[in-house]
Amino acid sequence: MAVVLYERLCADDRRPSPFCWRARLALAHKNVTHEIRAIRFGEAEKVAFSGQAKVPVLVDGQSVVHDSWAIACHLEDTYPDAPSLFGGAGGRALTRLVNHWVDHSLERALAPILIPYLLAVACPEDRAYYRQTREAKFGLTIEQMTTRRAVFLEALLPVLEPLRQRLTETSFLCGERPGYADYLVFADFQWARSVCDRDLLGPEEKVLRAWRSCMLDLFGGLARSVNAFETAA
Amino acid sequence: MAVVLYERLCADDRRPSPFCWRARLALAHKNVTHEIRAIRFGEAEKVAFSGQAKVPVLVDGQSVVHDSWAIACHLEDTYPDAPSLFGGAGGRALTRLVNHWVDHSLERALAPILIPYLLAVACPEDRAYYRQTREAKFGLTIEQMTTRRAVFLEALLPVLEPLRQRLTETSFLCGERPGYADYLVFADFQWARSVCDRDLLGPEEKVLRAWRSCMLDLFGGLARSVNAFETAA
Repeated sequence: MAVVLYERLCADDRRPSPFCWRARLALAHKNVTHEIRAIRFGEAEKVAFSGQAKVPVLVDGQSVVHDSWAIACHLEDTYPDAPSLFGGAGGRALTRLVNHWVDHSLERALAPILIPYLLAVACPEDRAYYRQTREAKFGLTIEQMTTRRAVFLEALLPVLEPLRQRLTETSFLCGERPGYADYLVFADFQWARSVCDRDLLGPEEKVLRAWRSCMLDLFGGLARSVNAFETAA
Repeated sequence: MAVVLYERLCADDRRPSPFCWRARLALAHKNVTHEIRAIRFGEAEKVAFSGQAKVPVLVDGQSVVHDSWAIACHLEDTYPDAPSLFGGAGGRALTRLVNHWVDHSLERALAPILIPYLLAVACPEDRAYYRQTREAKFGLTIEQMTTRRAVFLEALLPVLEPLRQRLTETSFLCGERPGYADYLVFADFQWARSVCDRDLLGPEEKVLRAWRSCMLDLFGGLARSVNAFETAA
């Protein structure tokens, strides 16, 4: 039966959602043929069948799965003969820890930098909703986030240090081949690239830039194939 | 042949080094009988045979291994029939990422809080060396660290969030049984407990406190068996 992934749509056909990129890359890793259905912030009713309002939502035959981690686990367990996303039980447990680090440390560092840019590429009819929910979540207006951008960019640098250290040792966070932990982190860089006309990584970030370039090349250049800013190529 | 672990000794027989606790707990996990030889900061010549000056150093038959990660990998590879520290190749790769996070995010958040306390329990003849090296590393005097303690304690809270999230899901970071990633993180709490007469975790930190208590109970209460402050029991 058909596999369908519902993901977030922004203006100019942009697809910035990092949570949806996690699912996209996991599907590609598992080599699962699928159809993409992209919906605006204001079209939550289109995934109401999943019992909640957010994307990504995966429909895989009779299974309806929401939440990016649940989708990754579904794919790992449903397609055991395809390459592993986690590399075993120990890998799954620690990938989940990395997931929480991305959600609570990396994303918290990136969000106040990226949200003002994302507002500019949100579909016009979604902007009021987007502004209201993000300002409430971070306790800052969009204008305050913009004013403090230099501070947030400076604060991002030490957050990236574990990634720099790891990527001096192996090609990917998961070793010599990429795994779901790589997709978790890369999805945030793809989010940045989808909305932001400046590169968050300076020219001195050779290790992170080389890894990001490899991630963009994966699966026939999947992540390069969407509308994004070329600054972070 | 005999297995010997060289570790750091402080006043009153305290053993605060988190790097040495990683090795101690990994040896216990692998059920490797060993002897401990504790040396002061000023006794680096006692591990000069390892080609460098730091502890931990593991002597396992003909093998001399320094650096806590190299020791963990040595134990995993030399004792494959004992319980795994990493849980497979995927687990090993991501444990290394957690190792870098502990070294560069968690330890950076803890160090300016703990260093003034550690100075007080360093062996008297080591204090000048300890003060000089730590002040140079962090660009702050011991007195400045003490003055800013409340700021550093506040900044620690968001760093711990990925751990809180993960430990609401499973008993240990590595799942239902502890693994080396647990030892990496716990070693920093053991460092705190060994030198600091206040608990870094407030009473509201139920999840982290429960995990820490389980970690203290492991291996017949190994981490409880040393001289430490009872505040963080």
